[in-house]
Amino acid sequence: MYDVAEVRRDFPILSREVNSKPLVYLDNGASAQKPQVVIDAVTRAYAEEYSNVHRGLHTLSNLATEKYEAVRGTVAKFLGAPSEEEVVLNTGTTEGINLVAYGWAMPRMQEGDEIVLSVMEHHANIVPWHFLRERQGVKLTWVDTELDGSLDTQKVIDAIGPKTKLVAITHLSNVLGTVVDVKAICAAAREKGVPVLVDGSQGAVHMPVDVADIGCDFYAITGHKLYGPSGSGAIYIRKERLDEMRPFMGGGDMIREVHKDEVTWADPPMKFEAGTPGIVQTIGLGVALDYMMDLGMENIAAHEAKLADYARSRLDGLNWLQVQGKAPGKAAIFSFSLDGAAHPHDISTILDKRGVAVRAGHHCAGPLMDHLGVSATCRASFGLYNTEAEVDVLVDALELAHELFA
Amino acid sequence: MYDVAEVRRDFPILSREVNSKPLVYLDNGASAQKPQVVIDAVTRAYAEEYSNVHRGLHTLSNLATEKYEAVRGTVAKFLGAPSEEEVVLNTGTTEGINLVAYGWAMPRMQEGDEIVLSVMEHHANIVPWHFLRERQGVKLTWVDTELDGSLDTQKVIDAIGPKTKLVAITHLSNVLGTVVDVKAICAAAREKGVPVLVDGSQGAVHMPVDVADIGCDFYAITGHKLYGPSGSGAIYIRKERLDEMRPFMGGGDMIREVHKDEVTWADPPMKFEAGTPGIVQTIGLGVALDYMMDLGMENIAAHEAKLADYARSRLDGLNWLQVQGKAPGKAAIFSFSLDGAAHPHDISTILDKRGVAVRAGHHCAGPLMDHLGVSATCRASFGLYNTEAEVDVLVDALELAHELFA
Repeated sequence: MYDVAEVRRDFPILSREVNSKPLVYLDNGASAQKPQVVIDAVTRAYAEEYSNVHRGLHTLSNLATEKYEAVRGTVAKFLGAPSEEEVVLNTGTTEGINLVAYGWAMPRMQEGDEIVLSVMEHHANIVPWHFLRERQGVKLTWVDTELDGSLDTQKVIDAIGPKTKLVAITHLSNVLGTVVDVKAICAAAREKGVPVLVDGSQGAVHMPVDVADIGCDFYAITGHKLYGPSGSGAIYIRKERLDEMRPFMGGGDMIREVHKDEVTWADPPMKFEAGTPGIVQTIGLGVALDYMMDLGMENIAAHEAKLADYARSRLDGLNWLQVQGKAPGKAAIFSFSLDGAAHPHDISTILDKRGVAVRAGHHCAGPLMDHLGVSATCRASFGLYNTEAEVDVLVDALELAHELFA
Repeated sequence: MYDVAEVRRDFPILSREVNSKPLVYLDNGASAQKPQVVIDAVTRAYAEEYSNVHRGLHTLSNLATEKYEAVRGTVAKFLGAPSEEEVVLNTGTTEGINLVAYGWAMPRMQEGDEIVLSVMEHHANIVPWHFLRERQGVKLTWVDTELDGSLDTQKVIDAIGPKTKLVAITHLSNVLGTVVDVKAICAAAREKGVPVLVDGSQGAVHMPVDVADIGCDFYAITGHKLYGPSGSGAIYIRKERLDEMRPFMGGGDMIREVHKDEVTWADPPMKFEAGTPGIVQTIGLGVALDYMMDLGMENIAAHEAKLADYARSRLDGLNWLQVQGKAPGKAAIFSFSLDGAAHPHDISTILDKRGVAVRAGHHCAGPLMDHLGVSATCRASFGLYNTEAEVDVLVDALELAHELFA
């Protein structure tokens, strides 16, 4: 039984007020709050057990290394990765996708090669491919969403042509909440011999993920959206792809030997982890993933599905409000605009006065904004600690905004 | 008056024991411990004030953005940077130097172009240049150290030839403690029209830094060595160089607009900060730098100079111990080996039994190890909280190790 009241008590920030109102935090799509166990793990790591990792032999270094390296296994378990050696620890999805772009795609893509991506990708899964377009003449092939915000799996599959070298696609849209059938895409792409990168920044937060079942080649996650510390993250990379990659960032830890005229690399995954890593934030990420797995990803997903249903029914009742994206099974992420031409930024500011934190802007999804014909939206994005009562506060605050702008 | 006893009370970990002995932490070259104010800032940021930055308008987002962005000014002040717009916030020196390699050097260097570097560089300031050698045929020109571990400034200047496109040099050797006269090198390089990158990973920890006075083009620092959180850092980049650079990592925040067929960039420094940054660790870095500036960099340097003198005199008294590097004015970093062929790793393990944390290995300085003719050393590296009494504990523990291996 998922007890959201109990869950909320794990998050100290949720008891604070904003503008003399209880905080209603609906900006989880941008970043999630942290449970006390994560904060405690970070504090303990600094106050009692801190050292650099990997290269020491003293007690503190061994302790920090043990705790740090254990996170690789936690991530593997969380993602269903066959081996923890297929997990590269990093600072988040942006670094993960840039690693793939620089380490895997750049050396093997030629002018005219194609990358298939959906119009609802986040800039983190667009800009690294624009680099390849600008610098190497790679072609970006876009698949648009349907009117209801869903993504037609077959259209993605049909876009994979003889020149396609990669499909780069989100698991869950950060604007529309649309869930993509990445498993079907991976199966079809595999038949055509094309690797698939899945941007799991949102997907891994809201549903159970099993990369072996999905069949993807790359799956990138971001710790700060997973109730973990800022600057933490990881990417699953299938063994065959890992072996094809050249290093991205150079520095300590990722080498075997360095001489004046020669350098050799450590084995993967270390080959792709240059320099002193984000030691403490990675330790915190492990605790956050354990926290989520203890709650149960199925339970979290069920809780959020109920929330999404309730929010949808309440928002549907507001005939002056337009929600973007109504794909079946969508996640509890609602982007909307108000009649009366109120700018999303103004709406956000009014909601804030009621303690409601939502985001307003392009949500790092420029091509999707173009496709929807808007320059910005407001977005309420829910997490594992949100409640139906908070949906009601949101709706009350929206009604206030509507009155003010009517 | 620098009161080291009072300073020590600021660092909670220093009161812990290791193997039932008081911790004597002499592994500061690898990473430094954190004062309570930094730990508190991190805890508060997560427990009370957490949100993503830059793209929100709600209270928590404004709060986090304000605190995060203020660090840019703190870093500028700490480094003497003329403008905070010349400060790129990142995860540390490794990312900073890779940014310069990918964003500045890669697009402008041709086969046969040269990079001058010293033999005592850390792998973070070697491997990115090896990439350019392997991938683009750039030539690395090495300047060796003298017998006493000092670096002859004139030899560096003489190595700058007509094909030299960059000098990449450390401010302070992490193995030998040697301080490099980067100001003289910058002046000479500037006359020849060659930019200089200074690896300030160690330098900024142990002495006052003024990049305007030094005259360098790039100055990279790492937060975790500066008593700040892991995964924090920054690089100063002179305005003219910033304007010459193309983006390194692609993602959110570093763009102006993203469309299907076009992308435009944010202005520097944002252009070089892709995705959600290390929000909380950067906030912690700001507090750490303020802590150091409050103590006073001159005071810290004076305290450590006294420590270095004392340590040198004690270690010089051990005729079975060889210290690598005796350059005049060297920092309190002592790499050594013992007679009797004891492996540095074994020495480190014995010292650890006495609570003394030192590092053993190649210290991410492969070419220097080759130059010194050793495969590894033990290294005791001091920080602002270390004491003469701790030098005595180190020497006692070394005597024990010597007896055991004699």
